[in-house]
Amino acid sequence: MNVPEILERKRDGRENETDEIAAIVRGAVDGTIPEYQISAWLMAVLFRGMSPRETADLTRLMMESGDVWAHEDLGGVPLDKHSTGGVGDKITIPLAPLVASVGVKIPMISGRGLGHTGGTLDKLESIPGLRTDLDASEFRATLLDVGFAIAGASRQLAPADAKLYALRDVTGTVPSIPLITASILSKKYAAGVEALVLDVKSGSGAFMRERAAAVDLARVLVAVSRAMGKRAVALVTRMDEPLGLAVGNALEIRESLDVLRGEGPEDIVDLTLALGAEMVVLAGLAGGRDEARTQLEASRRDGRALATFRRWVERQGGNPAVVDDDSVLPAAPVRRDVESPLDGVLVRCDAREIGFAANALGAGRTKVGESVDPAVGIVFARKTGDRVARGQTIATVHARSEAAAAAAAARVVSAWEIGEAAASRDPLILETLE
Amino acid sequence: MNVPEILERKRDGRENETDEIAAIVRGAVDGTIPEYQISAWLMAVLFRGMSPRETADLTRLMMESGDVWAHEDLGGVPLDKHSTGGVGDKITIPLAPLVASVGVKIPMISGRGLGHTGGTLDKLESIPGLRTDLDASEFRATLLDVGFAIAGASRQLAPADAKLYALRDVTGTVPSIPLITASILSKKYAAGVEALVLDVKSGSGAFMRERAAAVDLARVLVAVSRAMGKRAVALVTRMDEPLGLAVGNALEIRESLDVLRGEGPEDIVDLTLALGAEMVVLAGLAGGRDEARTQLEASRRDGRALATFRRWVERQGGNPAVVDDDSVLPAAPVRRDVESPLDGVLVRCDAREIGFAANALGAGRTKVGESVDPAVGIVFARKTGDRVARGQTIATVHARSEAAAAAAAARVVSAWEIGEAAASRDPLILETLE
Repeated sequence: MNVPEILERKRDGRENETDEIAAIVRGAVDGTIPEYQISAWLMAVLFRGMSPRETADLTRLMMESGDVWAHEDLGGVPLDKHSTGGVGDKITIPLAPLVASVGVKIPMISGRGLGHTGGTLDKLESIPGLRTDLDASEFRATLLDVGFAIAGASRQLAPADAKLYALRDVTGTVPSIPLITASILSKKYAAGVEALVLDVKSGSGAFMRERAAAVDLARVLVAVSRAMGKRAVALVTRMDEPLGLAVGNALEIRESLDVLRGEGPEDIVDLTLALGAEMVVLAGLAGGRDEARTQLEASRRDGRALATFRRWVERQGGNPAVVDDDSVLPAAPVRRDVESPLDGVLVRCDAREIGFAANALGAGRTKVGESVDPAVGIVFARKTGDRVARGQTIATVHARSEAAAAAAAARVVSAWEIGEAAASRDPLILETLE
Repeated sequence: MNVPEILERKRDGRENETDEIAAIVRGAVDGTIPEYQISAWLMAVLFRGMSPRETADLTRLMMESGDVWAHEDLGGVPLDKHSTGGVGDKITIPLAPLVASVGVKIPMISGRGLGHTGGTLDKLESIPGLRTDLDASEFRATLLDVGFAIAGASRQLAPADAKLYALRDVTGTVPSIPLITASILSKKYAAGVEALVLDVKSGSGAFMRERAAAVDLARVLVAVSRAMGKRAVALVTRMDEPLGLAVGNALEIRESLDVLRGEGPEDIVDLTLALGAEMVVLAGLAGGRDEARTQLEASRRDGRALATFRRWVERQGGNPAVVDDDSVLPAAPVRRDVESPLDGVLVRCDAREIGFAANALGAGRTKVGESVDPAVGIVFARKTGDRVARGQTIATVHARSEAAAAAAAARVVSAWEIGEAAASRDPLILETLE
């Protein structure tokens, strides 16, 4: 295989053949193609894009670059959910136990990511003792016992994705829809998932700021899934303000527990139920979304959702007392209230600014391998559309130091726009593609 | 310096700042920026292009990445000529001694290249004993004594170009006008040249097949030279049929000697005189092109051009007897005449096909570091526009074996189009830019 010719074909806007894409994926994993050729190809893909056939080939070949799990004896269709991520997006944490509590099977591979806060794994690890570095047999046992398991991607699952993502991250080749698609789907489908619910975020706090780009990504994710013989539904959702009230690792665990208890902020509850209903329908456990939603609401009310979470925490090594007493979670030494500088209505809260504030507090990482501070973050007392009086508390900053708290408080104030009247807003769920 | 940000800026179509380009060039040479980031940047440059300021920055920074020679005591303006290369393009070989014989000073850095035949250095090395691996002091001594010297680019001259070119060659990032410009000019200007005559080829046998692209390159080469405080003239010339009658390393030395003797095919003589006249004018040794041409023609007639070449061959270690007796050059064991299959007129000879035939005979290399066969090649007996009879010899193939000769002969026949009447053709010199 002549590697420069593979690059030149993509560079010139022609399609790469399946065996050419296979050579790239194989060469990236086993090191037989130098990284300088892989990265030049990635940049050419970023500029030229990929056809549906090429994107499906890349996804499948990346999936097949390592182990591919099967879950035949699960007693149900293995399902998963993926979100492209946003500020305050802790949906996975209430969603997985809630959906598992009505019988859906979820072998979930999750990430840490570089972001405003840690990823789902970091958030979960703020529960004392909880482990996400499960080996395949621990993962299987948890899944069979609880109905869901959550672990980080092992080196055995889609190693091509780990390799390509590490290169993309340092070569300006992250924002490419076919590359994003292959990265997301290869890991999920290698974990043995048969159907997937996708939450593609759009707005200032999302990777895809423009709605059109988010819809494009959603469309490609669904089409490639279908081309691989899988089923997928994608919700394009608004991410211009933080989801829920809490932004921070342990703080988001507290909020997730509220949701499982039948409480929690309206937007988080709505999105959890919407994504959950899609999963219940895909699993064949309900005839339609309304029926699925009713099942999920019942589980929140009667304690099954919370009990499922408790069992899961214990199974993955965490302290199950967290379910009844969230004081077992780490807490920040400094709490500082942020007051409204004006009388008026909270018109807008810029998710991106809040994300930067949380990251500056130490809730997120800026480099791979950094640790995150589980305790710090921001908890809002008010949401967009609420009326506030001057001096009223609109948020509380949880910080390591007074200085860090003061800096974050200033950022929170500037992220809010306070006006005369509430602005009209798009719905939380912008589009559903299936 | 944040390297991913440098790449992202170029990727998004914004200009790289001077210090960003400096970081790339420095990082490529000293290895502090990994090759996978350099190659991704090169691919982004290929897609996005570079502004005149960026191209001039890149050229200057590549030039300054190693030694920069000065030739203050030369008694004349140091000049050079560069050709983008084509089939049968041996112009440098008669041009340098001819122009030096009338007083122009030429510190010439030349290449080997990957092509149909070897580069100028390979052709010259078919002269027994001749060395082109001169160190700086040998180069200087030859230049002062003969008026010109020819050597390969040393590692001390523009090392950034060697590094970047090696990467471009294997990552599909060769065909980029700003990158080509910086590669050509950085080496030439590092060698202490103050003015440059550029022969930018256009047509089937050239790197730039389209005239518009060749004109674009010529324009950028002249503009960047000016931005660097140098003078440059670019001729865009036709390369759709082989230049002259000989294609092959030693075979082209023979033809070059004919030109120096006042003989030689019309196209080679014309182009040598046209490029030479520009050099004589740039050197300030003639008031205009006609006067310069008259000087050069006199030198060809009265033997000064040939004598200058003889002195140069001897100075660089070669056997000067080559000038009087070209049987000292290597000769191929097999010679096979190619006969015209038809009666008619030679309408067209595809340079590209002839190039492939010469390469297949062993005259060129396909990988860096391969050796070339000095003896093999093709010598035409007829040129485009000539009338031929069926069975008449139109070319002679010089080969290592009968089988190679037969294959090349078939290729030569298919490269010719024989018709009823000659087609109209563009002039050899399509445009002059200064």
